[in-house]
Formats: sequence, structure tokens, C-alpha cells
Amino acid sequence: MRTIFILLMLCSVPMPMAAQPQAAVNLMPIPTNLRMGTGRLAIDPSFSVAISANSDPRLQRAVERFLNDLRRQTGMLPVNVRVTDASKATLVIRAEHANKEVLALGEDESYSLDVTSSSAKLEAPTTLGALHGLQTFLQLVATTTDGFAVPALSIQDKPRFPWRGLLIDVGRHFIPLDVLKRNLDGMAAVKLNVLHWHLSENQGFRVESKKFPKLHEMGSDGLFYTQDEIRDLIAYAQERGIRVMPEFDMPGHSTAWFVGYPELASAPGPYQIERKWGVFDPAMDPTQERTYKFLDDFIGEMAGLFPDQYFHIGGDEVNGKQWEANPKIQEFKRSHGIKNNEDLQAYFNKRVQEIVSKHGKTMVGWDEILRPDLPKNIVVQSWRGQESLAAAAKQGYRGLLSHGYYVDLMWSAERHYSFDPLGGPGANLTPEEKQRVLGGEACMWGEYVSPENIDSRIWPRTAAIAERLWSPQEVRDVNSMYQRMEKVSRKLDWLGLTHNSGYAPMLRRMAGSDNISALRALADVVEPVKDYSRGELAAAEPTSADPLNRLVDAARPESLAARKFAGQVDQLLSGKADADAKAQIRSLLILWRDNQAKLQPLADQSFLLKEVVPISRDLSSLGSAGLSAMDYLESGQHAPADWATEQRGLVEEAKKPKAQLLLMIAPSIQRLIQASAGQATGSSSNQGDR
Amino acid sequence: MRTIFILLMLCSVPMPMAAQPQAAVNLMPIPTNLRMGTGRLAIDPSFSVAISANSDPRLQRAVERFLNDLRRQTGMLPVNVRVTDASKATLVIRAEHANKEVLALGEDESYSLDVTSSSAKLEAPTTLGALHGLQTFLQLVATTTDGFAVPALSIQDKPRFPWRGLLIDVGRHFIPLDVLKRNLDGMAAVKLNVLHWHLSENQGFRVESKKFPKLHEMGSDGLFYTQDEIRDLIAYAQERGIRVMPEFDMPGHSTAWFVGYPELASAPGPYQIERKWGVFDPAMDPTQERTYKFLDDFIGEMAGLFPDQYFHIGGDEVNGKQWEANPKIQEFKRSHGIKNNEDLQAYFNKRVQEIVSKHGKTMVGWDEILRPDLPKNIVVQSWRGQESLAAAAKQGYRGLLSHGYYVDLMWSAERHYSFDPLGGPGANLTPEEKQRVLGGEACMWGEYVSPENIDSRIWPRTAAIAERLWSPQEVRDVNSMYQRMEKVSRKLDWLGLTHNSGYAPMLRRMAGSDNISALRALADVVEPVKDYSRGELAAAEPTSADPLNRLVDAARPESLAARKFAGQVDQLLSGKADADAKAQIRSLLILWRDNQAKLQPLADQSFLLKEVVPISRDLSSLGSAGLSAMDYLESGQHAPADWATEQRGLVEEAKKPKAQLLLMIAPSIQRLIQASAGQATGSSSNQGDR
Repeated sequence: MRTIFILLMLCSVPMPMAAQPQAAVNLMPIPTNLRMGTGRLAIDPSFSVAISANSDPRLQRAVERFLNDLRRQTGMLPVNVRVTDASKATLVIRAEHANKEVLALGEDESYSLDVTSSSAKLEAPTTLGALHGLQTFLQLVATTTDGFAVPALSIQDKPRFPWRGLLIDVGRHFIPLDVLKRNLDGMAAVKLNVLHWHLSENQGFRVESKKFPKLHEMGSDGLFYTQDEIRDLIAYAQERGIRVMPEFDMPGHSTAWFVGYPELASAPGPYQIERKWGVFDPAMDPTQERTYKFLDDFIGEMAGLFPDQYFHIGGDEVNGKQWEANPKIQEFKRSHGIKNNEDLQAYFNKRVQEIVSKHGKTMVGWDEILRPDLPKNIVVQSWRGQESLAAAAKQGYRGLLSHGYYVDLMWSAERHYSFDPLGGPGANLTPEEKQRVLGGEACMWGEYVSPENIDSRIWPRTAAIAERLWSPQEVRDVNSMYQRMEKVSRKLDWLGLTHNSGYAPMLRRMAGSDNISALRALADVVEPVKDYSRGELAAAEPTSADPLNRLVDAARPESLAARKFAGQVDQLLSGKADADAKAQIRSLLILWRDNQAKLQPLADQSFLLKEVVPISRDLSSLGSAGLSAMDYLESGQHAPADWATEQRGLVEEAKKPKAQLLLMIAPSIQRLIQASAGQATGSSSNQGDR
Repeated sequence: MRTIFILLMLCSVPMPMAAQPQAAVNLMPIPTNLRMGTGRLAIDPSFSVAISANSDPRLQRAVERFLNDLRRQTGMLPVNVRVTDASKATLVIRAEHANKEVLALGEDESYSLDVTSSSAKLEAPTTLGALHGLQTFLQLVATTTDGFAVPALSIQDKPRFPWRGLLIDVGRHFIPLDVLKRNLDGMAAVKLNVLHWHLSENQGFRVESKKFPKLHEMGSDGLFYTQDEIRDLIAYAQERGIRVMPEFDMPGHSTAWFVGYPELASAPGPYQIERKWGVFDPAMDPTQERTYKFLDDFIGEMAGLFPDQYFHIGGDEVNGKQWEANPKIQEFKRSHGIKNNEDLQAYFNKRVQEIVSKHGKTMVGWDEILRPDLPKNIVVQSWRGQESLAAAAKQGYRGLLSHGYYVDLMWSAERHYSFDPLGGPGANLTPEEKQRVLGGEACMWGEYVSPENIDSRIWPRTAAIAERLWSPQEVRDVNSMYQRMEKVSRKLDWLGLTHNSGYAPMLRRMAGSDNISALRALADVVEPVKDYSRGELAAAEPTSADPLNRLVDAARPESLAARKFAGQVDQLLSGKADADAKAQIRSLLILWRDNQAKLQPLADQSFLLKEVVPISRDLSSLGSAGLSAMDYLESGQHAPADWATEQRGLVEEAKKPKAQLLLMIAPSIQRLIQASAGQATGSSSNQGDR
């Protein structure tokens, strides 16, 4: 076992041997080292747990939560599955040491889990490791022929990177505490360990400040967290092994601050909370001392509220317009020999860094802040590309990768999964430089999320990113990832996350009816448009007051139904489809062909469905085209070139975004048509995002 | 309008005229008086509400909740739909008076709601009425062609009965506070106004007692509510216009008390928490003064904790065995001239009534307590039949109907709906006696409910009971009730109730797979066995520690799919089915015929599905038989008598409970078979529970 472990760590090529046992168990992230045993351990009402060695109350509470989760997953009752003493317990947990009250970066998170057909043993140097091991155990529980059970196995596990985060932007749309809590539960389930809480934006300042109450009173529409609520959330996170790093974005992204404190800005007020999306002009005035006095007081207050060592000051996307327009600022630049706005921001960053440092914290910022005059202990978060991460590491800075992990861009899990903090330019770093790459963070930016749909934008794709950050670099079998992601997605349901359960209610609201099968058939194969094109394609400029109740808000970022269909078409075109497989393809095509006729009556009743009729028509056209292509393919005769050209036109039309949605089966239908006409089809993996 | 109102109140026959407008709106319960207007009021992001006249903080908080509910229902955001001032508001609310801090029985709950295409006005004498009006408004919001909207209409509404309750038994299975809270939200949505909290049972004592801490410490498995939690729940209920009446069942149903305090019992201890279901021997010793001393102290403590005027002492199902076996008790009976155990219990009740009264409360008890020596101010809750309710009213006692409203018995909504507190013997009461019938209570007894499935046992059927207790007696169109119940069921989803959303996750757990379509097809047409036969049909005696994760725990109490199929068969047999309708029946029959082949692979993988294979086979047999019957029916030739007899045998087999489930399409298939053989079929409404 040790051998496999070492091999995994040293090899830089994919290892089918290591991937083999992984596929057999539904774990995400895949552990560093796993060996399957024989038989399985029954998880029945008499199952019990004991903690031996230390009596860390955090571990005791984690075990209570573990038992609750286990009960929920299995439908067992509070009088089932209990804590007992070590001599009688089914699962014995030994964690050598408690962690510090405030979790620190880089604590030992390793654990080992040994399961036989009669008992289980979880061992870890610290409580943190034991927490991860309990999550692994929960993922292993499955319904079997003779009861719930965990397969016999042996796991030694530890994270590849010490910083595995999820950024949640609560500035653009406020996200209530209970929604954040269930997402912390989800993070713990996939072993993420940092919540990066993006707390201020042009559209809202979300933290109660006792020193500067006009920040939350005037900058939040009344939608902010009290300091008690923040302490509550931090405690909730720490219980689950998750650090909470606050971000207060400055000097840009700061309109909401200026509503109450216009004197901080580089242009005179008054200011109003921004309702639109984008990069805006307002920026703090970096030339006046009162800005730094304010920030000193403010950061001092926040440093007391947020116990984590790291403090994020944003630092991104300053367009410089207010600075250019302000003669006093221009004069300051001249008199201080500051050549341009980038240098002016660097001056600002340096001053802010000194303040952050004075209050005992380590500064983190977006990659724009990277300038050699900042001390080496800061952390740079790379969002514009992997190059800046490598550059930072080379210059001696620690860094985090977020480029590639923006879940608001509606990319596929596969695409996120392909980004590696040590991939691309990072692959050429020296071992010492690589050590400076701390990990990465998935980023849930908030333009188009509400409490209702945010879970469906975070999950399950973030589980794939979590695996990238935890598991050995060589773990990259995409099919295995998808299989396991679907399983873990269902496990997350038990935590109350709504990424699956919220889908049908949103469709029912749109339809104004229970009868949503036609709408669902359409919704299952569309995705929201990618990257930043939602705003570009909008009929009217989107605002933060737009209800998020359209199909684009409910549709999943990634259509697994379309992905599966692409696989079925692949199988067909490679000659591997049997009669059953062909019949399945046909029945889907018939469903789609006939779907618009069923959807139209719903659309006639609902203002929310009017806009989806054109894409629904496209779906029907594609269904018909696909069926004709199937007929040609099965007849053994090539389709006429004219027909193929005409159908190709339909497909091109169907590929155009409509109602800010993409019809994800279009490329597969195109391949069917091409094949039926005897043309080369390429493979499904060449389809852009796929 | 006044005319219609008076007619409704005077008529004793069903009134199609009155029922007509009711069917047009999705309200449950139906208001006393409703007149449809022209057009509709848009509910868009600019919708606003104002409170004029009083400034009751309870009403202000209710309006905040109303706006939250409206946002959830429509997918609008916190910055949409706001409170404003009366001159600008879309909906203006005027409630003349605040209610008392502690809600009392019989307060004015009436309201009127007028909606035009440009504004709405809600008026009520008290905050309570306004609360009900807001719920009516929420039910009226629908998805339309040009936005969310409420139809223009005019409603004058008030409840028929002042006591409209739901009993939740938390003694047999503990139900956590959050589950109770979401059910209180559901109660408020359908205008129920009493939570009857059944807090002690043989299987558990669920309240923290500071005077007698061994009650909850030893009698609850650690599953109890602290006094703070109880105050929290009561406040939550009162905010929603709901009174909370506690029940501490005595002298029977009290084993859990005796675990800590065996000296209260009529036989020496020690006692253990009861794990089985049924009527047990342990009963308080009614002959010793220390029993009354204890109850005086205990009831005194609880009277301070529960502010409601009414205090339920149970009083049901004392089997007398401990009393018979105790010579001291027998001697007491002789020396006090007490002839039998009923008289002994009457003596106990009288003593307890004095204690309850001393602590300022009014006693409520189950119908066994009805004895002429009790004062006339007590309330009798009738569970054994409607006769006892009428008898109580005749003797001058106030009463509540629960017979007919036991939702744990898995009856259809139609059956519950048919019971009227003033039906049966109650119809012959004098007007003065009728006044004593305060209303009724749905009862959710706890043998087979857990936090996971309790909502699905309460909802949506309890909405039909709520309508019976609120709406005019003449409202009894069953088809209209079902249509509206399905709508209100979906509205309840937005409150977080899990009666719909919990179904698929339970099926997925059973299947150990996402692929549950075959299991769902079966689950949709079965129901748990009725009345008390679940225990009788169990392979091993059920206990309170049995996980509730089987199909019988997930299957809905009433299969609306089977009900719908019965309607389709009715239509067919009455010659009213067109080709489409016939095709729909056939496609269901084919689905069922082929279902077992799809379900078997799931059952091969899961211990929870083994038991459902026989009933799944029956479903396939019925599908086949139904298809053959269709063939005969459409051929115009009678099926051979031999064939019909043979099929009839299959149906009889399929009617037998299996895995404690009933296959609800069996009677409809039987009718198809009979019709195909040219035999009389009866009507679907003769099918027992249907």
C-alpha cells in the first residue's frame, strides 16, 4: 500500500492501476490511497461509535452530527445508531490531538480508515483528519442486498493542497445565513476547508459595522449580517473544519461603502447602491489620509470579528476613471512620482497591507495586487489566468488558483476539473516554488444567484473542483468523475442542499401547473449561456432587482442528460450500439420531436414560458432531424447531400442562444446528420465546453 | 352577495350555485362568501403592502412573513415587493384591533378581501382575521399569461367553527421543533388555529420539568423539548394565529412517567420506556394522595409554561389491570363505594379537574372522561364516534370531533371530508346544543411517523379537514375538493413542508440508485394498509426503534394516481372515453404490465425492496389483465366467462395486503374485467375507502 502511495505521488502520467479501485467506490474526492477488502460492514440500527484517546468537544459534536447524517441517509431514528464505549463500538475513532480553537492554514488533515466486515477504525493525528474520515465513511454507506453497509477497505488519505476554498459573493445578491450553513455542510462533505466570504460590492455592503454603521445601514437595503450572526457562522464553519476568510473589496467594487461615506470616494457624492452589473468608476481616494484612517479603524474592527489569519482586500478591477478626473489625485501622482494608475493602486495596496499587518492579519488579494514591493507573506489569488499564479510563486509569493474555477460561468464539471493549480505554467515551477501554490478556490459570483438557485450553481460541480484540490494530481478520469459526482450530488441532498430538489418547484412555478413533463424534457437538455454572455444577450440591461425565476435561472449549468445523449451517439457512431441502445436513442428523439406540441399549451398560460417557445421549437426540429438521420443510418443508404445541408441549417439555428439558453443536444444531432450523409463527424469531446 | 351568504347558511342540501364560483379559484378552505370580479391584479416586483389604522406588531410581522412567502412563491427577491405607506400600496390592510397577547378561543377571525385590477383591500375586526386574509391572498396568486396575478374578487369570510385543530403526537416518536414549525406554517396556510401537542406517552415524556426532572431525563431517551424551546414554539404559533394546547395523558398512557417516578404507578416498578405499541397496563394510582400532590405541582408548573386556557389531560384507554391487581386499590374502591374501574377513573378525573381548575385552566379530555359529575365548563374530545359528541352537547358539555379525522389511519381525503362535527347524531341537536360543538381536530398519532415522513401523513389530507371545519357545511363537492387540495398541496411546498419533496429521496434510498422510475410507478399506486392493520400484518411485532424507511413509510396515504385511474375507467365504462382517453388507459396498463421487469433488478440490489416484489408482480398481472379486458371491450365481443373468472382470481390476490401495502388500482381493473365479460361493474365510488 505504501508503494502505491509513493508511486501516486511521484508519477506524472495517468495511472489506470490507481484509478481502478477508485471507480469501485463512490468517493469524491478520491482518497490518496485506497485498497479494497473483502465483504462489508453492516450499518444497522445497532451500529455504534466511540471516541478513544482525546475527548475534544469539537470531535464529540462532529460525531453527533455524523450520526444525524447517517440517520438521515438511512432513514434510521434517533434511538438507532448511538455513541457507546470503545469496547463495544462498531466504529472506533482515535484522533491524537485537538486542533486550535481557530483553525490555521496547513494543519494536519490526514486520516486513515480501516473497515472490515465486523468493525471500523478511524485514526488521525488531529480532529480535522477525523472529521474528513467521518465524511469519507458517510459517502461509503450504500444500500445493499442485506442492509445498509460500508465496503471493507483500507484508506490512507491526506489533501494535496492545504487551501481548498469556495468563494460565495453575498454582495451582489444577499444570501441568508441558513443558505450559507447548508453550503458549509456541503463543503465539509467534499473536504473543502475555506469559505471565502465576499462581503462587500458595489451592490451591497453586508456586514454590520459598529464603528461605521452607515456602511450596513445605508449600503445594504437592510440585507446584512449582524456581528452575532457572523460569529455564529464562523463557529458553524470551524466546527466543520472550515476556515472563514472575509473579503472587503477595495479600492474599487466599493460603491456601497460610499452611500454612507461619500468622503472615501475619489469623486463627490452622493452615491446610491448600484443596481446594475459590471465594472464601475467609483473608487476609494488613495491620496487622502482620511481614507487610511477609516480603513485602519474599519479593518481593526473586522480583524476582531473574523478570527482567521487571512484577510482579503480584493484589489481587482479598478478602471481609474475617478482618479483621472480628480485634479487633486493627479497632482498627488505628480508630486509623488507615481507614473500611472496601476502604480497608484500599488501605493494604496502597500498602505492597506501595512494596516492589515498592524492588525495581525495576512493580506490576500486578487492578482492585480501582485507587485514586488509587497512583502512576501501576502497571498495572491489568481483569477485572470494561471500565468499570474506561476509568476507569483516565482517571485516568492504564495498563491491560490481561481482561474478555471468560476462556477458562475456555467462551464461543465469536466472543464473545471481540467484546471490544475500546478498545471500549465505551474508545471515548470521548482519544487520550492510549487510549495507556494497553496491550492485554489471555486468562485460563486452573485449576479444571477438567489437563495433559491445558488445551490444549483455551486453543486455538484464544485465537488469536482474539490477533488482536484484534494486528490492526487493523477486522478483525472473524467467518466469516473461524472459517475461519482452524480452519487455525491445525491448524498448532498440529505444535507438539505437544494441543487436537485429546487428544480421541479421552479419549473412548476413557471408552468403555473403540476403538469411539467414537457417543460422538464426541455429544461433537462438546455444550459444557461456561458461566460459573461447572459448580460450581453439580455433584452434589457439586467439589474439586481430582476426576479430570478426564468428557465435560465432554473436550468442546470451542465445538462447531464445532454452529456449522456452525446455518449449514446458516440456509441452508435462507433458501431457499438445494440438494438436496445438504438431504441433508446430513438425514444429520446421522439420525445423531443413531440415535446413542443405538449409545451405550447403551458406557454399559452404563462408569461414565464413565452420566451422558451423558440428553443422548444428547435428541440422539436432536432428531434425530427435526428429521427430522419437514424432512418438513413439504419437503412444503410446515405442521406441526400441536400437534405443534410438543410438539416445542418436547422442545427446552426438551434445552436444560437435563445432566452439566454443553449440547446445542448445540437452538436450530437449534428453528428447524427453528418454520419447519415456519410460525412466525418469528429468526436463528442471536441464540442467546445464538453 | 348578502343573499348568497344567507342562503348558504340556511340551506341543508348541496348548492351547485354556491359551488360554482368556488371551483374557479384555488382556495382551501373555501370562503363563506365569494364573488368573482373582472380582470386581475398584477403581482409584480413593484407590488407593495401597507397597514392602515392599528400598528399591532404581530400584524407587522405577519406582513413581513407574507412578503417572504410571496417572494418564495413567485421567485421574487428581497428588494422586490415591499412595505410602503397606504397612499401608494397595492394591498392595504386594515385590522381594527390587536388580539390579546395570549390568543383565546372564539375571538373574531372574520375578514373581507376586495381585489380589483388595480388594488386590493383587506379588512378585519382583529389581527387574526387579517392573518387569515393574507393566507387567502397567497393562495390566490397564480402564474398567468402576463405575470403573476390575483383574480379580481370580493370575499367575506369567517370560520364555521372556532376550534380547528391538529393533534401531533410527539410521545411515540419524537418530532423536532423545526418539523413542528413548518407544520405550524402549514396549519396557518389552511386556517387551522389550534396545535394540540400530545406530549407524553408510554413511549416518551417530551417536556423538560424543572420540578420533576426525572420525567424528561429518564422518560425520553434524551429526546425532549426544553422549556425555552416550548416557549419558542408557542410564540411561533401565536404569531401565526394558532393556540397551543398541551396534553399530558393520564392516568393511562403514562409508562414514561413511571421510569423516573415509579411511586405514581399502581404497581411496583421499576419501569422502562415502552418500545411497543398498544394499550398497556401501567396507570397512575388514583387512590393515593401523593399522586394528586405530584399532579398539583406538575400541572402548576405546566400551567405556567403553557399560556393557553385549555389543558388536555387525556383520560383515554385505561385497561384497569394494574388497579385490579392491587389489593390496596381494591380496598379503596370498596371503602369509598366505587363500583368499577370506570367510576374509579371518574373519581380520578374529578380530582384532576379540580387541580387543573385551581391553576386557572379549563380541562379537556378524551370522550371516556364524560361523566355528569364533572363541571360543565370542561371540553370533551370525541374519538370513538360522533355519538359521544352529541351526547356531550346534550348534557351541556362543549365538545370537539376527532372521530373521522385520524390521519394515521391512512384514509382518503374524501372519507375524512365526509365527517362533519354536526353530521350524524349532531344534526338533530338544538341550535343551543350545536353551539357547544366547538369544532374538531385532525389527529396525527405517532406510531409510524418520523421527522422524515410525518408531513406526508399530515398533508395534504389535513387541508380537506381544515375546510370541513372552516367552510359552510354545504361545501362538499368532492371533485372540487380534490382539485383544490392538489393546488394547495403545492402551495404548501413553498413553506418547506416535505410531503411532496420527501417522496423521491426515500425511493432513491430504497433503490440505492437514482434510477427509480419503476419503483415510483409502483409506489404511486399503492397505499399503506388502513386503520390498525399495519401492526396486525407485521411479520415481527413493531417497535419504536424500527427504522421507518420502507415503502409503506414512503407511500402516500392516498394514491391520487389510482384515484385518477378510477375516474378514467368510469369514463370508459360510461361510454364517454374518446380515442385519446382510451390510449391513456392503455399506456398506463402497459406501464404497469412491464414494470415488474424493470423493478426486479432494483430489488435484486436492495434489502428494502425485496418485500415489494410480490405486490410489484401483482401490478404486472393487473396491467396484463386490464389490457386483455381492453382488447375484449374494443373488439365488441364479451370475454369468455372462464377467462373472467380466472382474472377475477388474480384481482382477489392483488387485493390482499402485501408488505403492509394495498394495490389501489385493483378495483378499477376488476371493473374493466367485469365489463369486458358483460357483467355489471358498479361504480368506482363503491370501492370501500374511495
